[in-house]
Amino acid sequence: MERKITPSTFIGVEGEDIISFGSGQPDLPPPEQAFSCLKNYRNFKYGLISGQEKLREALAKENPGFTKENFIITNGASEALDLVFRTVCKPGDKIMIHKPYYYSYKPLIEKNHLIPIIVNTDKGKIILQDFEQKVKDVKIVLINSPSNPSGVIQDIDTLKKIEEITKQLDIILLSDEVYKDLIYERENYSLSGPHVVTVNSFSKTFAMCGFRVGYVFSNDLSIIEKIKQLKTHSSMNTSIIAQEMAYEALQAPKSHIEQQTEIWKKRRDLIYNTLKEMGLDIWKPEGAFYVFPKIPNPEKFVKDMFEKYKVITYLGEWFGDPERVRFSYALSEDKIKQGLEKVKQYLQEEGHLK
Amino acid sequence: MERKITPSTFIGVEGEDIISFGSGQPDLPPPEQAFSCLKNYRNFKYGLISGQEKLREALAKENPGFTKENFIITNGASEALDLVFRTVCKPGDKIMIHKPYYYSYKPLIEKNHLIPIIVNTDKGKIILQDFEQKVKDVKIVLINSPSNPSGVIQDIDTLKKIEEITKQLDIILLSDEVYKDLIYERENYSLSGPHVVTVNSFSKTFAMCGFRVGYVFSNDLSIIEKIKQLKTHSSMNTSIIAQEMAYEALQAPKSHIEQQTEIWKKRRDLIYNTLKEMGLDIWKPEGAFYVFPKIPNPEKFVKDMFEKYKVITYLGEWFGDPERVRFSYALSEDKIKQGLEKVKQYLQEEGHLK
Repeated sequence: MERKITPSTFIGVEGEDIISFGSGQPDLPPPEQAFSCLKNYRNFKYGLISGQEKLREALAKENPGFTKENFIITNGASEALDLVFRTVCKPGDKIMIHKPYYYSYKPLIEKNHLIPIIVNTDKGKIILQDFEQKVKDVKIVLINSPSNPSGVIQDIDTLKKIEEITKQLDIILLSDEVYKDLIYERENYSLSGPHVVTVNSFSKTFAMCGFRVGYVFSNDLSIIEKIKQLKTHSSMNTSIIAQEMAYEALQAPKSHIEQQTEIWKKRRDLIYNTLKEMGLDIWKPEGAFYVFPKIPNPEKFVKDMFEKYKVITYLGEWFGDPERVRFSYALSEDKIKQGLEKVKQYLQEEGHLK
Repeated sequence: MERKITPSTFIGVEGEDIISFGSGQPDLPPPEQAFSCLKNYRNFKYGLISGQEKLREALAKENPGFTKENFIITNGASEALDLVFRTVCKPGDKIMIHKPYYYSYKPLIEKNHLIPIIVNTDKGKIILQDFEQKVKDVKIVLINSPSNPSGVIQDIDTLKKIEEITKQLDIILLSDEVYKDLIYERENYSLSGPHVVTVNSFSKTFAMCGFRVGYVFSNDLSIIEKIKQLKTHSSMNTSIIAQEMAYEALQAPKSHIEQQTEIWKKRRDLIYNTLKEMGLDIWKPEGAFYVFPKIPNPEKFVKDMFEKYKVITYLGEWFGDPERVRFSYALSEDKIKQGLEKVKQYLQEEGHLK
């Protein structure tokens, strides 16, 4: 690789001989129902800009207190975030994110001529004092709990405090909850309030990354209307067939999600314990499917692991922490074991393990 | 309708009792092959940000001189245009469009903090003198031939002159060719050159509007790379299943398109002649599937036709010409006849027909 590696170097790269701890792509398939609707599918016309009615109605049922009017279906959570930034902000506005952050946040903020304000964390947990010092003149506070890349969930007390402070200061609280169904330690706490805008997706819970179906919802209908107006011009409806599949996935029994969460938890224990045993500095993830250990010379590690061992990992630098490397555990236990064996071998050869 | 009507008032609105001359949605179905691939479809993972390789390879074959590296597959031509604006321009840059223009151009330009420069036309044909006066300090010249909403195709001499002028002035020439396969009068002339960025879609040629598959291609690989970088964060890959369908549609025999063009031409003659006979001021469309007659009191006409007769038409104001109304003829001959009968009745009642 001559060019600087970026996330797009790896996205969609696969092969029998590649072990990918890279992208957050579940290997477990979507519910069978998501595919069974395809057989007789014959629609082809434009859909509503805000998304198919039955899908929005089904989502409203999953989120009590909301109706279909509160939702817009988007091309994944990525487009949902982008649309919120583009409709709510004007150039120069400040957006608060907590470190380490999902790698798309900063480029999206900056590409929209906005300014990222970074809140410090302690082992991934937001430091409230730092939050309170920096929050006053921001337009949006963006919370991602469980977090990609750290797997950390924020404490409920912290989340309640953030709800309260942002409400008082008339700041939009943007909650990226794409991993909310993947928590191993406690129930999820969904941020709520008249000033909250929530983003979610079918990519993680239902393993539907490739189809690109996400959504945004809020009690603030003026924001929802602005998003609809922009989406009318920037991409129109989200692919109707992908929405149909998402609707069918939602009809699958909830046990589907619970069974998968059990598998994620087992893998988390495997990868966390193995990396911990190697002596690496690592936090125990409470949700999502990532670990985020410190690795010596991360840039060389990520390049070498890919070029020499065909093992994909993601640079911590993309997530705001240049000392670490993100490993996704969205791959089979066998692959995890094989991949970690190569990691161990490499780190030993480089003299990093005692 | 209490609120001001906008295109999103009508998009996706359908029903047995509604006659829609509104959205540019073909009623004729996609090639059968687009659906036959669905039966055994089982993929679900992220795709490449630039789009599936086989689809880009197939598109390169359709566009001699290009390879798959020159293409990015997008969520329709809408996202393609938006991505070009967002990657090539900085706030305050000027974008030239010709009047009447597709209704998304101005909002997209303005939403990206850019400035639209409007070139005048004579019966839809670009006035070169006006073009030359205004072109000097623009960043992008956007040409849409055949045009939505006028159905006009620009003369080949004009197109060649525009290629030459923009090349000399180092201006990006953005060609929106989504209607290039729907021309009734001559072969298409595709704009070309090292400075040309072309946008196209499967929506019109293959009637695949709802699936949202478009693409952008250019000889300028630096633009293609920038688009890929932004799309990595703003929406990721275009829906993989929609891309599969697009690939299959491209494999259908070319006679599919020719047969449909014959139908479009017949409908064009029907709608053009009928509106002409009513005495309306109207240009004969040479491509696409729209007519754009002058109508007295257009705002009242569009509202009344929808509320009283359930006939959808689009306000010329959205396209930069407040004296006209756009009628799409992407509906059956029967529906066209029924709809035009209601138009005639209404215009007679209002005393607008002699």
